[in-house]
Amino acid sequence: MTQIDQDLVQQLSLAEKAALVSGKDFWFTAGNQRVNLQRMMVTDGPSGLRKQASSADALGLNQSVTAVCFPASSLTACSFDRAGLTQLGTNLGEAARAEKVGVLLGPGINLKRSPLAGRNFEYFSEDPYLAGELAASYVNGVQQQGVGVSVKHFAANNRENQRFTMSSDMDERTLRELYLAPFEKVVKQSHPATIMCSYNAINGTLNSQNQRLLTQILRDEWGFDGLVMSDWGAVADHVAALKAGLDLEMPGKGDLSVQEIIDAVDAGELGIGTLNRAVVRVLRMVAKWQQPAGEVESYDLEAQHKYARQLAAKSMVLLQNNDQVLPLKADRSLAVLGALAKTPRYQGGGSSHVNAYRVVSPLEAIQAARPEVQFAAGYQLDQETVDDQQLQAAVNVAKSADQVVLFAGYPAERESEGFDKTSLSLPENQTKLIEAVAAVNEHVTVVLQNGAVVLMPWQHKIAGILETYLAGEAVGEATWDVLSGQVNPSGRLAETFPLRLADTPSTLTFNADPAREVYREGLFMGYRYYDKKQLPVAFPFGYGLSYTQFKYDELKLTVAGDHVDGQVRVTNTGDVAGTETVQIYVGNQASHIEKPVRTLAGFEQVTLEAGKSATVSFTLDQRAFSWYNPAKATWQLDSGSYLVAVGHDSRDLPLSQQVALTSDQDNAEPITSESYVGDLLHDPRAKQALETSGLAKTFEAIAGGQTTDDQMLLNMPLRAAVMVGATPEQVEAFLKRVN
Amino acid sequence: MTQIDQDLVQQLSLAEKAALVSGKDFWFTAGNQRVNLQRMMVTDGPSGLRKQASSADALGLNQSVTAVCFPASSLTACSFDRAGLTQLGTNLGEAARAEKVGVLLGPGINLKRSPLAGRNFEYFSEDPYLAGELAASYVNGVQQQGVGVSVKHFAANNRENQRFTMSSDMDERTLRELYLAPFEKVVKQSHPATIMCSYNAINGTLNSQNQRLLTQILRDEWGFDGLVMSDWGAVADHVAALKAGLDLEMPGKGDLSVQEIIDAVDAGELGIGTLNRAVVRVLRMVAKWQQPAGEVESYDLEAQHKYARQLAAKSMVLLQNNDQVLPLKADRSLAVLGALAKTPRYQGGGSSHVNAYRVVSPLEAIQAARPEVQFAAGYQLDQETVDDQQLQAAVNVAKSADQVVLFAGYPAERESEGFDKTSLSLPENQTKLIEAVAAVNEHVTVVLQNGAVVLMPWQHKIAGILETYLAGEAVGEATWDVLSGQVNPSGRLAETFPLRLADTPSTLTFNADPAREVYREGLFMGYRYYDKKQLPVAFPFGYGLSYTQFKYDELKLTVAGDHVDGQVRVTNTGDVAGTETVQIYVGNQASHIEKPVRTLAGFEQVTLEAGKSATVSFTLDQRAFSWYNPAKATWQLDSGSYLVAVGHDSRDLPLSQQVALTSDQDNAEPITSESYVGDLLHDPRAKQALETSGLAKTFEAIAGGQTTDDQMLLNMPLRAAVMVGATPEQVEAFLKRVN
Repeated sequence: MTQIDQDLVQQLSLAEKAALVSGKDFWFTAGNQRVNLQRMMVTDGPSGLRKQASSADALGLNQSVTAVCFPASSLTACSFDRAGLTQLGTNLGEAARAEKVGVLLGPGINLKRSPLAGRNFEYFSEDPYLAGELAASYVNGVQQQGVGVSVKHFAANNRENQRFTMSSDMDERTLRELYLAPFEKVVKQSHPATIMCSYNAINGTLNSQNQRLLTQILRDEWGFDGLVMSDWGAVADHVAALKAGLDLEMPGKGDLSVQEIIDAVDAGELGIGTLNRAVVRVLRMVAKWQQPAGEVESYDLEAQHKYARQLAAKSMVLLQNNDQVLPLKADRSLAVLGALAKTPRYQGGGSSHVNAYRVVSPLEAIQAARPEVQFAAGYQLDQETVDDQQLQAAVNVAKSADQVVLFAGYPAERESEGFDKTSLSLPENQTKLIEAVAAVNEHVTVVLQNGAVVLMPWQHKIAGILETYLAGEAVGEATWDVLSGQVNPSGRLAETFPLRLADTPSTLTFNADPAREVYREGLFMGYRYYDKKQLPVAFPFGYGLSYTQFKYDELKLTVAGDHVDGQVRVTNTGDVAGTETVQIYVGNQASHIEKPVRTLAGFEQVTLEAGKSATVSFTLDQRAFSWYNPAKATWQLDSGSYLVAVGHDSRDLPLSQQVALTSDQDNAEPITSESYVGDLLHDPRAKQALETSGLAKTFEAIAGGQTTDDQMLLNMPLRAAVMVGATPEQVEAFLKRVN
Repeated sequence: MTQIDQDLVQQLSLAEKAALVSGKDFWFTAGNQRVNLQRMMVTDGPSGLRKQASSADALGLNQSVTAVCFPASSLTACSFDRAGLTQLGTNLGEAARAEKVGVLLGPGINLKRSPLAGRNFEYFSEDPYLAGELAASYVNGVQQQGVGVSVKHFAANNRENQRFTMSSDMDERTLRELYLAPFEKVVKQSHPATIMCSYNAINGTLNSQNQRLLTQILRDEWGFDGLVMSDWGAVADHVAALKAGLDLEMPGKGDLSVQEIIDAVDAGELGIGTLNRAVVRVLRMVAKWQQPAGEVESYDLEAQHKYARQLAAKSMVLLQNNDQVLPLKADRSLAVLGALAKTPRYQGGGSSHVNAYRVVSPLEAIQAARPEVQFAAGYQLDQETVDDQQLQAAVNVAKSADQVVLFAGYPAERESEGFDKTSLSLPENQTKLIEAVAAVNEHVTVVLQNGAVVLMPWQHKIAGILETYLAGEAVGEATWDVLSGQVNPSGRLAETFPLRLADTPSTLTFNADPAREVYREGLFMGYRYYDKKQLPVAFPFGYGLSYTQFKYDELKLTVAGDHVDGQVRVTNTGDVAGTETVQIYVGNQASHIEKPVRTLAGFEQVTLEAGKSATVSFTLDQRAFSWYNPAKATWQLDSGSYLVAVGHDSRDLPLSQQVALTSDQDNAEPITSESYVGDLLHDPRAKQALETSGLAKTFEAIAGGQTTDDQMLLNMPLRAAVMVGATPEQVEAFLKRVN
């Protein structure tokens, strides 16, 4: 605590302190007129500012001030573009600053464990490296504008059903290597102003009361020095939460919140030092991130709209493009189908919902360029059953057109914060429309609007598929940019698209139990699962097409101390300029542990004119080769071989090389009476001692493992080998010699 | 302790007691001449007696006395025949009694978690109900002969690699509902003389030192009153083992074993009461199961051989029979291919290995009936590479024959106690032979000899497949019985045959870590996994063809107190007599927990002449509908709906009915401030209190769940609903009223 902190804290009464560690209401921290402390505003909106005009209503889900609605994180993640995410943050920070908002409640960086999870649209990826890199870039952008962030939802908040009470149960490696990893990266790299602790429990302890999570890991291990606030309503026991390391309850419960603190301090249940600690963190946060007093300022919404369009267009993922159905041919007739073309779904429901500045629908954007296009809705958005007449009208339009663009996706009622999905299928009226249209036209492109994974049983019946997720208010312009070829798509999937719901890693358990979610798949989540199970998928992690092609060659890897430097040459072999995301994966062949086949360890982007080449450099740090060893509570690097694979996506890796790393950690298992005969016979540390103790001779006959009996004996530890010929004296002599 | 026990214990010195709790050597308990206590012999052999001539060699894997080698448990389990297993036990008991063996070391009843596990051939099934039922029947047969059993390997001993030290890590429900369940059934139903504790640990505690396992669960919960012996060499810390509830260390370590006990008692580390307890159990075991003194007796080995043939034939599983290629046509020429026809693999390696009385190879048996058959080896057993000349010779034989029977399987080197497999594929020279022969002959039947699951990529290229596992010494006669149609096959798979190794439930983890095996799939093992993941398989659990067909109708279910009585009519609709195993599965639709789609809850066998019908009755006990609730440490039956499905196998269940059960346990979750609004609105217990507290009115608007916001609010607990309109006073009034 600094002197300034101490001085201020000393001026405050117990009641005043108690008042500061809860929000004044939904969107403001508590102020204190006596000491001239102003309240500070916080505001939802990872994809655009949701600053409430009034803060009185339930959950504050009413109309907010106008702001540009940027694409949801499920789409921006597909940009694989660190700079692009920083620029998004800059835009959001600019808006927040103008609107006098101190802390922006985002980004949401939880991993997409199940594609059914209702809030996936707000999150980046199934991969912790990608989520962490993009989140760190985003946070830098916001905070460079003098606005703080609240990185959420800490942690393992991967389902919505019963989210206030359910426990995410998993082993320590899974927690560390997957679900905590993005938070760790953001904390260490971008020093976020605040972290928002999530509703759920981990392994039985509610996160808001989880001392290990909020203090030991977050602060002691990672060095976080900001404030921890609760998700809205996540505090079940305010005193326990303060003790665990939560600083700010949001929203406050009014007098009740103050009184329970006073009572606990009076009863000796809550130490004043613990309360002071939280008070100081609130004061510091307000001091650092409070916006200057004064009227709301204006900022360039039109420029922000333009960036929303640019970010959306560069993030959209071209999933299929048979016979180069895209870009659309300007000289051939075009039909636009699907109610979503006219009434696009461009953002998700719940706390991220923005009062958009200017929505341009795909139909508007297309008609602006090609006023002659025919349109038919084909289905209704407020119901899922087939309207035969409407469907037939759309089919008739499709019949007469050279090219068809059909907009499909989840209706808003399917996907929102607050509850999980039960299906990954499109509504029946959309599926039927796609199939009917595919039957009459060979040049059909389906444009998808959805928060998360969609199953596409009709995939092979149509020519093109463009995944636009929830593309923000410029959805129409961005979609047309890509469809028309003005933008060459470069987006890559930040999550696997499976063929069946039953194929997903968490099928066995997801939402089976209201009280808990057992992460049975452990480390094998997302592509780590599909790769280990050798499962075919609809579209793999990292996948995405371009209007051009890229070739890889000349991979060079250099081990340099604790990291690996790499270079690879990429050539644009097609006819148009394009952007390629070079993805680098590492496969651990050194460690005798459960492990995925490969994990994303780096990505770099390069934009190339047609026919041009460039050498792309990358660095893989020690973490890329390490695993979390719970027994030693440390990240462990094992000496041995690692396969570094480079290419276009997780299943298209044309180049790979093995690198041999030497760890400076002492990771060798000690030799004891529990050591196995078969291992000892190959362990250089044991060679001499085996000879001198006489064990080498005893084991001579079986060392070759020729027979099943030999193999059985090699699979015995020393202590049991006494049963089959080794003498206790030999074992004792051996162990004395070897250690 | 009875008076007799006490008297005997009092006569013994500490050193004498210490000497009794370890084996004298590999195969004998310690005697004591002074008090006239004879040593008692124990002998390996779940599938036949392996009584050692000498007990001096390493692991005692040398030649043993002649005994009939019965089929391995992997085959006998396919009989689904309780009476048949009892008769097997009777045969083994008769042999043991004649040979003066007090306790037979078997049966092995571990579940087949991974098809790679090296010792699967010694075990019954992937299903705990089937394993338990068959094991209980087997134990009854042995013990009715006055010979004790040692039911092994207790528990969760599901891999061979590092088996002395590795830990099987799993949650409590998985342990109880799967891996302990067969042991629980055998202990409660058949009162085995002894239990053999396994090498491995469970959740970090070595089984031989696992007080919870050996005492709390086995004795206190299940009421086991026999003796616990160690697997051979499983004791790492003898004193800790005695304290945990192990009674007899096997084999003894000689003076060392005695001295460590004396030292521990002297040091006050081991209470004399604990030692006395083990001594008494040894004394009781010897008193009860020691065979009368005297010379070895003779018994009817020829009769036992006959039963080995009968049991093998009725257990073999007809997996495929396209165009009725089987039974073989007596009037059409026949070729026999495959080295395994001449040198059959009929038993597994390791401690179950029997010095067989009289092995009849398939080729001998076939030639006895049809001396004119042509034979070609086609491949060598001692190598896996293709010998083109040998292969071509076999193909030539196949070309000239009307019908081909091709014997294939794992060589002995692949499968044994003591190490795990790494592949489920047949050797390349066999696979190539099958494919080459299939290309030239349309009437090929492959007969498989293997301890466990084999992948069959060639399945659809051939007509017939007969799975004979390791069929014992009468392998040839039994195989011919089925091939020729003298026996109509009725065996059913006791394990799923997957399409790919990667499809198996434990692929993510099996043998990944030398120190531990994480049972990540939990309850979803075997068919429970394939069904939940909706995976296609080669052949499902319970599957097996007959030379006739059966029809099911008239299913009747009656709830009778705590159990369900059922009846179903089965009709033989084919041309020959046959035996049908009626399988009954239960699907729990009542409980909000992780749960399999369905689990085997009963099976009954009926033999019917062609055209005849019979009504088969069955009873499903309360356990069939219950799950183990770790929080309450009890088997819980929830009131609600259960789907009872009846039919031929786990994926062919033509009849099903729902039954509504009412539990007399009080399982309802209490209503608290953590209860969810959505649940409360449908809970009859809450209705009145919601009205009087005013909450009903507060929640009125959202009760329909029309909008995404409504759904979000329904998914809030009462404590958080305070944030969105409910008053603390309302909640308090509600909780007061409702409880």
